[in-house]
Amino acid sequence: MRIAVIPGDGIGQEVVAAALPALDLVAEIFDLDATVEQFDWGADRWLRTGVGLPEGAVAQLRAEFDAVLLGALGDPRIPDMAHGRDILLGLRRGLDLCVNHRPLPLATGTIELFRENTQGLYAGVGGTVGPPDRPTVAIDECVYTRDTVQRFLRYSLGRIRDAGQRRVTLVHKANAVPHTGRLWRELYAAELAAFPELDGTDEYVDAFCYHLVRDPGRYQGVVAPNLFGDIISDIGAALLGGLGLAASASICPQARLALFEPVHGSAPDIAGTGVANPYATVLCLALMLDHLGHRAPADALRAALAAARAEGGTPDVGGHDTTSGFMTRVLAALRHQ
Amino acid sequence: MRIAVIPGDGIGQEVVAAALPALDLVAEIFDLDATVEQFDWGADRWLRTGVGLPEGAVAQLRAEFDAVLLGALGDPRIPDMAHGRDILLGLRRGLDLCVNHRPLPLATGTIELFRENTQGLYAGVGGTVGPPDRPTVAIDECVYTRDTVQRFLRYSLGRIRDAGQRRVTLVHKANAVPHTGRLWRELYAAELAAFPELDGTDEYVDAFCYHLVRDPGRYQGVVAPNLFGDIISDIGAALLGGLGLAASASICPQARLALFEPVHGSAPDIAGTGVANPYATVLCLALMLDHLGHRAPADALRAALAAARAEGGTPDVGGHDTTSGFMTRVLAALRHQ
Ligand SMILES: CC(C)[C@H](C(=O)O)[C@@H](O)C(=O)O
Ligand SMILES: CC(C)[C@H](C(=O)O)[C@@H](O)C(=O)O
Repeated sequence: MRIAVIPGDGIGQEVVAAALPALDLVAEIFDLDATVEQFDWGADRWLRTGVGLPEGAVAQLRAEFDAVLLGALGDPRIPDMAHGRDILLGLRRGLDLCVNHRPLPLATGTIELFRENTQGLYAGVGGTVGPPDRPTVAIDECVYTRDTVQRFLRYSLGRIRDAGQRRVTLVHKANAVPHTGRLWRELYAAELAAFPELDGTDEYVDAFCYHLVRDPGRYQGVVAPNLFGDIISDIGAALLGGLGLAASASICPQARLALFEPVHGSAPDIAGTGVANPYATVLCLALMLDHLGHRAPADALRAALAAARAEGGTPDVGGHDTTSGFMTRVLAALRHQ
Repeated sequence: MRIAVIPGDGIGQEVVAAALPALDLVAEIFDLDATVEQFDWGADRWLRTGVGLPEGAVAQLRAEFDAVLLGALGDPRIPDMAHGRDILLGLRRGLDLCVNHRPLPLATGTIELFRENTQGLYAGVGGTVGPPDRPTVAIDECVYTRDTVQRFLRYSLGRIRDAGQRRVTLVHKANAVPHTGRLWRELYAAELAAFPELDGTDEYVDAFCYHLVRDPGRYQGVVAPNLFGDIISDIGAALLGGLGLAASASICPQARLALFEPVHGSAPDIAGTGVANPYATVLCLALMLDHLGHRAPADALRAALAAARAEGGTPDVGGHDTTSGFMTRVLAALRHQ
């Protein structure tokens, strides 16, 4: 396994540095060969050189790596997050990672959330009318192609079935946003036909969020366009007890190379204080091992996380651990399995 | 006061019929002159005649009425809600109701939510490429004009200040949806300058929803583009204890005529069973009286609602009242004030 690591900004650097020893240890225990190469893409480099995602980066990742681990991007010195957009959206689009999987292991059951990850309002299509610094009209287009929605749905429904779930919900807003809404509903109905095991329904995004907050147990598999998935995953993280516990995998159904990142951001308010939560980053390593076909070490990491969490946690989840204190628990639990 | 009433579909008809006697009674008590005219716009008429919002409706409302009360729109026979879009979005755009005010009286304090109501992804701009029944690309455009964002913000910030709130938060997604996001941030900063009493900040919509679920007391005034406001108001209703308790006012900053509607939908699952919650519709009447300058009767309605709610409620909020049973409490409380 050749893993490209982009620590990024703020606590991204801290959680990645803290979590990687868990990868080394689990590789040693299970006799896996894992090599890691670090890339300094992020705010500092952007401010120094104006470069976010360097030229040739996508081709290099495709040619030389099996997976990408990303910490977090975001820096108060770049308030519009131009560098984050360049790097993160550049990787998602460049590597055609149209599926974003964010499992939400809630007390009421796990929701398997699948978010489309490259199009919709994130397609990067839009502009302004009028003077650039004083536009009279601003437009961002929500664009979906048949091909991508289809590939996304086919893959996601398959994963939801394979996870043993029966119910699946499409989230949309076809009553107000009709063109993309209709495309999603049409393809959802067509793709569902190939999954007789699944009981499919669909809900308006506003009603969905209402029910998610009141009764999350109502949902199992969830498929959503890009922006709705972004919002839903943060609500899910809130229900989970904190952003620090949520991990995500960005996947191309047609390729092996995938990208793994915690759902939390760079948290400039706590960066450097040594209390960032490395839980989600370790969970990313488990999702990565799963994806590369190494189920046993992935399960070992999850079990170690659960054991560590039962004993303690960082302040964001109500504990008193430091980042390294929590990792000491994880590594000890791994060793004692 | 000349009030146009559109009961609409499903429980819309039931809650409007149940709530109007409270308007009659409060008008009698406070010696107000309120005349009501009903309009049968909704699913039945759409299915019978193909007409949603009849020609000339907007001009008639402008010429002859001071306020519009709308029950709810939505019918299982029209799954894409084409009639609802025609009527509701037609009224919002036709009457230039660019401000939607949804107060959320939470246990942690009231959030004054202001949602832009006519543009963004609701602008009705978009289309498809390819065969109409099998498009290869679908597009919905998020369009914002400087003029409307400015009018919306100026009016909303004024209302937030007048409500005695100090903190205000703009919700946006400028890190992924840059053109409209930047326009909103630019105008927000400019308009805030005229409100030294307000302490303004801004948050990404995903982070905002995360914090709203975990710690709603963090927010006071909130201003949001159309779709984000739609989602936030349903999350707010969930935190409030039910959609049945949330009311909204759609306002044009430049005109007196405004539209009032409960946030809940037509609820076909409980329509006809006599247990729809009329609370939000009575609250709409209070917002309407406020808007037309009749503060005392509005306060009387709110006090009666609170008294009735302390004694009972419909099943959606955990009570055992029927629609008419709850209204009996409201009318009795009004009489005994
Ligand atoms: C019915 C629908 C188009 C509408 C909206 O999205 O505005 C509703 O959800 C609302 O909030 O009034
Ligand atoms: C940083 C931002 C552009 C990003 C997104 O909206 O996709 C983030 O919120 C996420 O969920 O990964």
